[in-house]
Amino acid sequence: MKRIAIQGFEGSFHDITAHHYFQGEQIQMICCATFEEVFEQMKNDPTVIGLTAIENTIAGSLLHNYELLLQSGMTVVGEDKTHISHCLCCLPSQSIKDIKEVHSHPVALMQCRKYLSQHQNMKIIEADDTAGAAQWIAENQVTGVAAICHADAAKLYGLTILENNIEDNKHNYTRFLVLSDPRKADMLRPINETNKSSLVFSLPHEEGSLSQVLSILSFYTMQLTKIQSLPIIGREWEYMFYVDITYDNLVRYRQAVDAIIPLTRELKILGEYKAA
Amino acid sequence: MKRIAIQGFEGSFHDITAHHYFQGEQIQMICCATFEEVFEQMKNDPTVIGLTAIENTIAGSLLHNYELLLQSGMTVVGEDKTHISHCLCCLPSQSIKDIKEVHSHPVALMQCRKYLSQHQNMKIIEADDTAGAAQWIAENQVTGVAAICHADAAKLYGLTILENNIEDNKHNYTRFLVLSDPRKADMLRPINETNKSSLVFSLPHEEGSLSQVLSILSFYTMQLTKIQSLPIIGREWEYMFYVDITYDNLVRYRQAVDAIIPLTRELKILGEYKAA
Repeated sequence: MKRIAIQGFEGSFHDITAHHYFQGEQIQMICCATFEEVFEQMKNDPTVIGLTAIENTIAGSLLHNYELLLQSGMTVVGEDKTHISHCLCCLPSQSIKDIKEVHSHPVALMQCRKYLSQHQNMKIIEADDTAGAAQWIAENQVTGVAAICHADAAKLYGLTILENNIEDNKHNYTRFLVLSDPRKADMLRPINETNKSSLVFSLPHEEGSLSQVLSILSFYTMQLTKIQSLPIIGREWEYMFYVDITYDNLVRYRQAVDAIIPLTRELKILGEYKAA
Repeated sequence: MKRIAIQGFEGSFHDITAHHYFQGEQIQMICCATFEEVFEQMKNDPTVIGLTAIENTIAGSLLHNYELLLQSGMTVVGEDKTHISHCLCCLPSQSIKDIKEVHSHPVALMQCRKYLSQHQNMKIIEADDTAGAAQWIAENQVTGVAAICHADAAKLYGLTILENNIEDNKHNYTRFLVLSDPRKADMLRPINETNKSSLVFSLPHEEGSLSQVLSILSFYTMQLTKIQSLPIIGREWEYMFYVDITYDNLVRYRQAVDAIIPLTRELKILGEYKAA
């Protein structure tokens, strides 16, 4: 029995993704109110596995989760990608005319920007979770309020779908990371089966320092799938780099990392895993 | 008299930044409800200058504004950086115990995450603008509600500051871009005085293609100040790159761009300007 800590309720995208990733295995969800709590759960019990969103094709990277991952010392052991679609749902007694407020997670609200801008009369209210907003409406029989969540969550909580697929862009995918205590990583993904790595490092402010690092990765035939420079908090306009690379030869990958270490500052491997 | 379109009200960070950037010049603000409207104003009247936030040391890039800029065909003619600090403010008749709701812009809410998590009883509600939330409370004499905005905006609207500097991180800076119709760019910043350029391009999925482009920029002594890979909407897990470079020789810079064009797809110069 694997215990998976997620941010969100039953029916949330984290819950849907966890069931997809661990298909065929017995899992038990630990539903947390915040991402901080997910990491707290893992810290308190090293057998707990975490699953957190990290990137979305529309909203970009979830910088706060990168930060939490970095601070936690947990390691990435897997990834999954989930197609995101949203519906607007409310109590069966309500119709679209009754809706004065829309509750959802800020990222979901951002993903339905166009739809919401066509309904200016609806007040937009942030909730901790998409499915949580649906649950709250259902449990408290809240009238005049709709939630934005996955259609599965609407059904789960007995709500009526006013409109489905209200996301601005239909090509909306979220990438999730599966996280664990480094001591448990090998049990979750044999290192020989990995072909992707997430790295973070900072660079001295010298001309061409990034191009040198990327050239070396390229000489070692590492394939770059993501790069993002991020401001280092507290040192304005100095940057840290988050880089994802894929490889088909583990030895070559390790040699590549060894080769760039002397040119980087504070390089940290966030995890090695199998690409989704 | 320059007319500057901004998202937000009098007292907003856009307003504060516009007055700083155009210090000593006569300016007139065009306050817009959305970033879309800022670009609309510029499209309808080519003499209107735009000013929009593009990046924050805590929240990262404002991807939606990058997208609007790219679609609009406007060009960057300047940049400015503003230190962001937030206060919690309300009607003078209210005290902290009375506050049940906090209204502000989503980015400001995110920047005060720690403070807000210590006040779980306050419902978090998204508003279009920080100063707009303050104005709304003042004009409608709304009790039980506080706004998060700059202390100057609180004073402007006659609100009491319950707590100042509530942002999580004191090293909180936002970078703003000054935008204009390309036909007016030369009047706003003589090209010879520029030393910074923002580029966007996509790359074929070939090994090392990014490292080649960055190596060439480095050979031409271009200094990279920002890089971000972004999912191309509609083509999942293919990436576009936003890159900022600085230069001290305009001719060399132009040669560098010419040299990378054949290796990139859809390269576009978002603008050339003087670094802040």
